[in-house]
Amino acid sequence: MTTYKAPLTDIRFALYDVLGADALFAKLGYTEASRELVDAVLDEAARFTETVLAPLNSVGDEIGCSLDKATGEVTTPPGFKQAYQQFQEGGWTGLTAAPEFGGQGLPHTIGVPLNEMINAANLAWGNFPLLSHGAVEALKQHGEDWQREAFLKPIVDGRWTGTMCLTEPHCGTDLGLLKTRAEPNADGSYSITGTKIFITAGEHDLTDNIVHLVLAKLPDAPPGAKGISLFVTPKFKVARDGSVGERNAVRCGSIEHKMGIKGSVTCVMNFDGAEGYLVGQPHKGLQGMFTMMNTARLGVGLQGVGLSERAYQNAVRYSLDRLQTRSLSGPKFPEKPADPIIVHPDVRRMLLTVKSLVEGSRLLALHAGTLIDVAHHAEDPAEREAADVLVSFLTPISKGCQTEWGIENTYNALQCFGGHGYIHEHGMEQLARDARITTLYEGTTGIQSLDLMGRKTAASKAAGLRIFLGQIEAFAKANEGDAALAEFIVPLRQKASEWEALTRGILQRAAGDAEEIGAASTDYLFYSGYVALAYWWARSVAAANASSHPESFKLSKLETARFYFARVLPRTLAHAAAIESGAAPLMAMDAERFSA
Amino acid sequence: MTTYKAPLTDIRFALYDVLGADALFAKLGYTEASRELVDAVLDEAARFTETVLAPLNSVGDEIGCSLDKATGEVTTPPGFKQAYQQFQEGGWTGLTAAPEFGGQGLPHTIGVPLNEMINAANLAWGNFPLLSHGAVEALKQHGEDWQREAFLKPIVDGRWTGTMCLTEPHCGTDLGLLKTRAEPNADGSYSITGTKIFITAGEHDLTDNIVHLVLAKLPDAPPGAKGISLFVTPKFKVARDGSVGERNAVRCGSIEHKMGIKGSVTCVMNFDGAEGYLVGQPHKGLQGMFTMMNTARLGVGLQGVGLSERAYQNAVRYSLDRLQTRSLSGPKFPEKPADPIIVHPDVRRMLLTVKSLVEGSRLLALHAGTLIDVAHHAEDPAEREAADVLVSFLTPISKGCQTEWGIENTYNALQCFGGHGYIHEHGMEQLARDARITTLYEGTTGIQSLDLMGRKTAASKAAGLRIFLGQIEAFAKANEGDAALAEFIVPLRQKASEWEALTRGILQRAAGDAEEIGAASTDYLFYSGYVALAYWWARSVAAANASSHPESFKLSKLETARFYFARVLPRTLAHAAAIESGAAPLMAMDAERFSA
Repeated sequence: MTTYKAPLTDIRFALYDVLGADALFAKLGYTEASRELVDAVLDEAARFTETVLAPLNSVGDEIGCSLDKATGEVTTPPGFKQAYQQFQEGGWTGLTAAPEFGGQGLPHTIGVPLNEMINAANLAWGNFPLLSHGAVEALKQHGEDWQREAFLKPIVDGRWTGTMCLTEPHCGTDLGLLKTRAEPNADGSYSITGTKIFITAGEHDLTDNIVHLVLAKLPDAPPGAKGISLFVTPKFKVARDGSVGERNAVRCGSIEHKMGIKGSVTCVMNFDGAEGYLVGQPHKGLQGMFTMMNTARLGVGLQGVGLSERAYQNAVRYSLDRLQTRSLSGPKFPEKPADPIIVHPDVRRMLLTVKSLVEGSRLLALHAGTLIDVAHHAEDPAEREAADVLVSFLTPISKGCQTEWGIENTYNALQCFGGHGYIHEHGMEQLARDARITTLYEGTTGIQSLDLMGRKTAASKAAGLRIFLGQIEAFAKANEGDAALAEFIVPLRQKASEWEALTRGILQRAAGDAEEIGAASTDYLFYSGYVALAYWWARSVAAANASSHPESFKLSKLETARFYFARVLPRTLAHAAAIESGAAPLMAMDAERFSA
Repeated sequence: MTTYKAPLTDIRFALYDVLGADALFAKLGYTEASRELVDAVLDEAARFTETVLAPLNSVGDEIGCSLDKATGEVTTPPGFKQAYQQFQEGGWTGLTAAPEFGGQGLPHTIGVPLNEMINAANLAWGNFPLLSHGAVEALKQHGEDWQREAFLKPIVDGRWTGTMCLTEPHCGTDLGLLKTRAEPNADGSYSITGTKIFITAGEHDLTDNIVHLVLAKLPDAPPGAKGISLFVTPKFKVARDGSVGERNAVRCGSIEHKMGIKGSVTCVMNFDGAEGYLVGQPHKGLQGMFTMMNTARLGVGLQGVGLSERAYQNAVRYSLDRLQTRSLSGPKFPEKPADPIIVHPDVRRMLLTVKSLVEGSRLLALHAGTLIDVAHHAEDPAEREAADVLVSFLTPISKGCQTEWGIENTYNALQCFGGHGYIHEHGMEQLARDARITTLYEGTTGIQSLDLMGRKTAASKAAGLRIFLGQIEAFAKANEGDAALAEFIVPLRQKASEWEALTRGILQRAAGDAEEIGAASTDYLFYSGYVALAYWWARSVAAANASSHPESFKLSKLETARFYFARVLPRTLAHAAAIESGAAPLMAMDAERFSA
């Protein structure tokens, strides 16, 4: 069985020492978000996730959710409902939501460590409240007044949860192909008919009502993605005055048997003339979807961080406990029958790889959180705009890399256990199975990469990259006199300039061949992620040195940063070489020759 | 559900066109192993694995094995026993075994494609006969005459299976710590007492008897690994005349609940004064263990190849069928509602990565098979010796890389399915779960790497590497006039020379710091594997060009080789940089700072 302890020291280091979040919150007018309050919130989040959610993690995996085919009702694993009640009563669902809808109005940034902890403690459980955030954002930005009034308060206060109903059996990425229809009713509502699949938390017993945000096509819809509209379709109908009515014609037809996240329910949802209400303009549903999607993507990125943190903690503990063979340089613990495996360089290589990726990812994710706050609350419109452009650029990197690293990290942590890692009761294999979904849902890594390379780079003349490179250079310049940082700043600057040149090269080639975008995309995503982490590791060393943390903490940061630069950052060499080989080696083969 | 079709075309290409196995068999005196006979064996192996084993793959995963705690008996999944009967009656268990023990005496090389097919069709089932090979080798090389007579024939003809009982709860890699005791009896036998864990096929209902090869310590054993002896301890006692007696005091105490290979049983075996017979000299049991181990390691390496092949076939099929979004360079199938995803560069990147790794791995594995035949049957002792040194060097590369690539390949193939890959019924997630064991058992990747870097390189002055580099250079020299091959031969030569320099650097640093061996090891394993595959890809293009295969086949090889050199081989840059950074970044951190 794995255990979990919230990494509060590192979370606070990242928030305060590296990102200066307390000063930022004050500057953005979050007068309530004092360091004292934030610390209290983090302490309580740690307590809740460690003591309530974490013990239910294996229960969810072993028992899973079940569907009563006769009623279409889903039963969640034992304890999930009680945990949700505590979560709701504790006010966690509205932590960062706007006070006008009953939220506590704390900075979005504070939601990041909360969600990291939830995911580390119990990823499957965390999927029930997860998509409510996207529903809130979509309704807030695109909904009519009555919809915001009727739906937002119950979602924000956690009495209801939200879903995203996008995928259909024949279309996931390519939503232009969707077949779900919306027929206008006389009363201004719509009748939604169709089948949606892969609907996370589409049906459950945690709340009284479930609010589905559904993509469908109106009768006069133009073909393709430009003919998609967004509808809010609750499990129980909701009138314009907010009163809850009868059961709607939406029903869970079956639930999926999955590799992992078994405590989370993945539903086939059948809409059989269900009453829905148009959100935003007809045929403009993709805007609402992107709003939900971006929120959800950063949320899934945190799943990678949470799983990695839990995997790391357990791998370190095991590596300190497990005695096996002597160090090659002579016994380190001669009084024991063998040395603990943490003395062996290859075990250290695995552990330090995880440590450097998880602590770096934490900053990548928290930084994105701060940018959302800046984008919403900075006084200067140019600052808001720049933050919005930068977070748009970083979102696919954060989602794509943090989830891929989550898979690598759970792999390496399991590997430290040897054969014991493969045995269910040790719990490491659940982390690996749970992690496997994260590079698939809310857009595969390939889709994140295309978003990064296409929309966020090629289509915007690399605006986000230029802002980020500016921040890197500003940091480098501000610290170039610091001899203790030179070992990081010199290679960081070199990588930043290589990143810029690599991007220019891709865009030049893409002008002549559109396939160059896709051909470069995933290697470019990883390349970007590794350079971003190099930046965060350099900043971490600088921040640790300037902090009042104990010497052992500073040394741990310094040594991890050195490991990262020596052992992980060189992966950029492989990615750069792959990118520069261009599209030809990928595109030459005719489809039938893949099986020749 | 995944399907499987044995890749006979590519297996024959590898065997005959690349490796010239027909000429080699003739030269080694395998007069029966004509091409006609080998082809017939491969055809029949394909039929058996495709039609008998493959359909049982998901059955094994879903139903698994069960233990009757009252009797200690294990029931295998439905169909497994019948399949084993067919396997046994078909003579497959003795295909490559010596005729003196009832085997068919075919070249060891022919066992390689057979095992690839078994693993692709049903990895979990394949684990039941797998370890018999190791038991055969150990008894053949180290057993007394009566033991060979009594045990080998029933194992070779498949009436009995064998196991390797090495691991105990507190020791896997470090067998010097083991606690199982062997007390001499008056009749020359021994009483074995202790608990062994992770015993694959330790108990099952497929055969009448099970032959355990058990490591234990004699009362006068020196401490550590030099005090380990090997015993043959059957489930039913066997007298010196070969007659089978009563039930022995060895019993399955429990079976593990695992992430995958659920159709395969993993037992805790309790030896409670079980009658055993010493194999080889007292305290020299590790020799017998290494004999078993090397055989088993190459066998597990083939599990990576088999799973990769099956994953690839299904991913290609899905990528040709699944319609989703248009090609960025314009519609490729305008008559369809969208293009099949195989048009997208990133899907191609994943598929070609799998294709290049699986076809390259097939050659790596087959080459090792031919070396074993040469080592046993070549006339020239120097040739035998060189083959033995080379296969010793290549064994950890083959096991380590092929299993790691198996995990990567099942990852990429699943990823092609998007969210559908995570759903049990599609079968891709089983392949990923099954693959996860292969880098753990029979020595983790870290252990393979240490074996490669320590025993097979540092301790032997890189004798194996030097032979392999000689083969690469001989190929390069023989083909340097071939303009069509220059694009491969030039970088191959460069990588070979870099490999040599890298090795020299590690050994020099290791002279001053023993930790350099472990610090370099896993990156060195991968580096070696990628260069080895570059050699096999260059040879594949040369062999395809010289063959009478259709143009589409030749092009497929050429294009895959180009992809490999452009997109996969550059990973060596990252591994080389990591190696050259040395041990310091790994070793600096004190154990307690991993959690600082």
